[in-house]
Amino acid sequence: MTTTTSSQAHPKKFNLKQYLPVLVWGKNYQRVWLSGDLLAGLIVAIMLVPQGMAYALLAGLPPQVGLYASILPLFIYGLMGTSRALAVGPVAIVSLLVAAGVGDLAGTDMTLYVQLALTLALLVGIIQALMGLFKVGFLVNFLSHPVLAGFTSAAALVIGFSQLKHLLGINIPRTDFIETVQNAVRHSPETNLVTLAIGVVSIAILVYFKFVLGKQLKNSRLPNSLAIPISKSGPLIIVVLGTAVVILAGLAEKFGVKVVGDVPAGLPPLTMPVLDTAVWLDLLPIALTIAFVGFMESISVAKSLASKKRQKVESNQELIALGAANLGATFTGGYPVTGGFSRSVVNFEAGANTGLASIITAVLIALTVIFLTPLFQFLPRAVLAAIIMVAVFGLIDVKTLRFVWQYNKADAISMIITFLAVLIVGIEKGILVGIGVSLLLFIWRTSRPHVAVVGRLGDSEIYRNVLRHDVQTCPQAIAIRIDESLYFANASYLEDATLGYVADHPEIEHFILIGTAVNFIDASALETLESLHRELSDAGVIFHLAAFKGPVMDRLKKVGFIDHFGADHIHETTFDAMKAIGCVENHG
Amino acid sequence: MTTTTSSQAHPKKFNLKQYLPVLVWGKNYQRVWLSGDLLAGLIVAIMLVPQGMAYALLAGLPPQVGLYASILPLFIYGLMGTSRALAVGPVAIVSLLVAAGVGDLAGTDMTLYVQLALTLALLVGIIQALMGLFKVGFLVNFLSHPVLAGFTSAAALVIGFSQLKHLLGINIPRTDFIETVQNAVRHSPETNLVTLAIGVVSIAILVYFKFVLGKQLKNSRLPNSLAIPISKSGPLIIVVLGTAVVILAGLAEKFGVKVVGDVPAGLPPLTMPVLDTAVWLDLLPIALTIAFVGFMESISVAKSLASKKRQKVESNQELIALGAANLGATFTGGYPVTGGFSRSVVNFEAGANTGLASIITAVLIALTVIFLTPLFQFLPRAVLAAIIMVAVFGLIDVKTLRFVWQYNKADAISMIITFLAVLIVGIEKGILVGIGVSLLLFIWRTSRPHVAVVGRLGDSEIYRNVLRHDVQTCPQAIAIRIDESLYFANASYLEDATLGYVADHPEIEHFILIGTAVNFIDASALETLESLHRELSDAGVIFHLAAFKGPVMDRLKKVGFIDHFGADHIHETTFDAMKAIGCVENHG
Repeated sequence: MTTTTSSQAHPKKFNLKQYLPVLVWGKNYQRVWLSGDLLAGLIVAIMLVPQGMAYALLAGLPPQVGLYASILPLFIYGLMGTSRALAVGPVAIVSLLVAAGVGDLAGTDMTLYVQLALTLALLVGIIQALMGLFKVGFLVNFLSHPVLAGFTSAAALVIGFSQLKHLLGINIPRTDFIETVQNAVRHSPETNLVTLAIGVVSIAILVYFKFVLGKQLKNSRLPNSLAIPISKSGPLIIVVLGTAVVILAGLAEKFGVKVVGDVPAGLPPLTMPVLDTAVWLDLLPIALTIAFVGFMESISVAKSLASKKRQKVESNQELIALGAANLGATFTGGYPVTGGFSRSVVNFEAGANTGLASIITAVLIALTVIFLTPLFQFLPRAVLAAIIMVAVFGLIDVKTLRFVWQYNKADAISMIITFLAVLIVGIEKGILVGIGVSLLLFIWRTSRPHVAVVGRLGDSEIYRNVLRHDVQTCPQAIAIRIDESLYFANASYLEDATLGYVADHPEIEHFILIGTAVNFIDASALETLESLHRELSDAGVIFHLAAFKGPVMDRLKKVGFIDHFGADHIHETTFDAMKAIGCVENHG
Repeated sequence: MTTTTSSQAHPKKFNLKQYLPVLVWGKNYQRVWLSGDLLAGLIVAIMLVPQGMAYALLAGLPPQVGLYASILPLFIYGLMGTSRALAVGPVAIVSLLVAAGVGDLAGTDMTLYVQLALTLALLVGIIQALMGLFKVGFLVNFLSHPVLAGFTSAAALVIGFSQLKHLLGINIPRTDFIETVQNAVRHSPETNLVTLAIGVVSIAILVYFKFVLGKQLKNSRLPNSLAIPISKSGPLIIVVLGTAVVILAGLAEKFGVKVVGDVPAGLPPLTMPVLDTAVWLDLLPIALTIAFVGFMESISVAKSLASKKRQKVESNQELIALGAANLGATFTGGYPVTGGFSRSVVNFEAGANTGLASIITAVLIALTVIFLTPLFQFLPRAVLAAIIMVAVFGLIDVKTLRFVWQYNKADAISMIITFLAVLIVGIEKGILVGIGVSLLLFIWRTSRPHVAVVGRLGDSEIYRNVLRHDVQTCPQAIAIRIDESLYFANASYLEDATLGYVADHPEIEHFILIGTAVNFIDASALETLESLHRELSDAGVIFHLAAFKGPVMDRLKKVGFIDHFGADHIHETTFDAMKAIGCVENHG
């Protein structure tokens, strides 16, 4: 546990191990870890091959880009990440953000599109690495959970509907959410029934694997090393089945079933990002969004998995590792990556013990692009659409909304507004709207703090809220307790409330502010206290402070506030203050 | 005094008196108030005639616009304002904002320029009136005092340097601050020495009136009703002297001294704003800035003056009144207005008792535009530049910076960044940068709250910070107190700190979170507490809550948190918690 200033207090010595955790776990690697790492690496690779291609297509990119983004980035993260179980790679939400950010800039020029996507990975990598190096990971806290949940739910809807055209085998242009829905309805009579059948069967198989088979296998008491690979192989099975059916029945030629087409074989080429500041500026907003959203998705699953084994995840090193992974994607034909929720959980459950699991996945994907790409030529797009739709369905988070609504309306409102904003004004601006609303609501809440007039409880030295307790007050004095730190957003509220009360009660001669719940007074609030002091004194009322904390008082002393406020108007406790102004009779 | 929810509790009955305070003071008007109102109205008018013209020119508008903006708006504010002493009209900072916002859109088309300026007044009026009607005046609290001080200081510098060309009688284009300074230096050899002489003498007279004469008159024991008008007539005197010298010595023709030129006579025309949403959208950012900055300048002086007489100022009604005043400006050829600091202080000191003072000023300005405008034709621009420069000089606020730097570095940083941003990126974006920085710093501060590990003080039931007190702790348990409400920005900090501590200390079996300083737990923080609970339990650590406040507990209960947390892990006090886990021996 640490105090606010402890991070400054640590000596800043360069420590290579901090940046390369592999130096720690590699040196102490135990042979018993190997089987877990191997199995986890294999299972994640099985999931990642179809998902990587599907998410790349979702991002508007050729399918191999998703595979390229699953090689070097995973290798780098394996060496640098502090999480033992995080599975990095292409994920649905980031892919949607890439499509939103690059789509408008590149138009139909696919070479440019790929270039911009890897340039985006460069920016995301730089932003994340810098945030980690400068230890400003706290910046992601601007995104509250309800905003993130609203954003994710809406993005999942947008992604789901964007896949309808592949499921139905119809042609509709990539537009905003509402138009996409309208177009899908309008063009639904053109549905390619064979494509639809492939899609629906694929979804059925995936749903069976996801919701039924896992439980059945658990009950069958199969060893985990078999049960987990089987239960996670749904995507692989529909890929194999779908491809086989298309080839054997000649569905592509006879019925116009859309397939993935040529996927080049071989390791990813060395690629260079666009080095043009105008382009960088255009991509910056979406890069910031991806850097933040990607990191938040990643860190929350990493933390939750690490804690199960009492391991630690270092937020800032995670940013550096994800940043480096994205830089890896930049130079090997990839696009932005982050830690994915479901793959990481699978990785953990399959027994990943170290970053080696991630490296094994990378090697398997590399082997896939070298040897297996010809097999993907006849893979139906509807199969990939089914994989995406089932994956994102779980992201629609009605449970959280219901819960938050019950707990705290302000949070629920920020969630709903974010959700609607993403659907209506788009994914990029939607999240900004959400962040703005949540900050606004936070400022609004703290700008109207709970303020209690207190009175004396019986003959005790205890002062409590007059509205909740049967207490005695003193006509010529008012004592109030403010339950919030004083800062720019609420200082004027205190001032208004105080001056209003004093104006309404001409009999008041003493005003006592009780500071038990005040952890901090910022410069604006201090100025307000000064003017309140002046204003009360102009109105003939004496201002007292009671029970302020030591650190708060120290600061006030330093700038001479105490001197001109009058040290005899500052009291250790409310009781002391009341005694000093003659509201408590001295019983002796 | 009121609690958080009280505003909802009041019955919302329409009350005309609330919107028209004149109905209250008009009905109870006392004859003794009249002399004060008359004198104050006269003195403010004397100041306002030259200032109004000067500020209109600063805004890039013809001089009469400043006078027009000083008639109907003042009349309306006199009827609707809750401040008895606020003097509304054109002010320097708002004029600069108008120039920044309208300048780029209108180019050199003066008709369009005037149209856009009054359209801006319409938007400012609508924004302010709506904020007041919907009681969301708290929104202005986004602007912290240091940000406002940094903004005002930088704006004063920008304004001061923008007047150099009039003082030197040179021609330099209106550009950004840095270019203006460079141009002034480059063109300084072209200085018109006669113009410069007029300007320097004007400044000398104003400085004498401002800093010396006031004190001399105070010491002379002249009655206030004479001393105040004399000490405030500096601008009037240099206007009269300057005009007289220019006419008598023919300076305009012989030496090219620039003068104001034709000012049309007669009451303002009825004007209509531009009704084009595209234009409105272009003007919206600057309208918001003017609405906020103008209101903050206005409300702070209104509050400070009202408190001297134990009067109340209603923030929301002030917004409505200022909004209505701006709508008045829209339809009578004016431009955005607000309450000015120095004129309001003068109004107060001269004895303004009610809004009648404001109405009297309006009538006098109306008489001026009807009868006196021919006199302004030969008024030298250098005189107006001198008035502006002396007025804004006092706005450069080095004292606040020095003070804030000493008190709180984060506030000082936001002030300096705002100051520099206004000078470098411009007045509009600069203030946004400042607001962003101050929010960021606030979130940063609360995102790393003070967290104390506590131990038992001797044999007492009191638990204090282990770093400050000689206390006993218990090896298998850790109790920490967090000195901040828990919300989205700091929840993960608590989680990280806790999990880090638990990972480092395998002997820990109990973790106790003490909530004495927690006033609120938002949905994000609740979710974090849930996951912390799960994570601690996965790690074999029992999570306890101690000494949380009643209202906070009530909310947690409502959503069932307490049930699955375990009611026996929730304790009234830290001592109770320690007793429950066996860290306190029962002495019997």
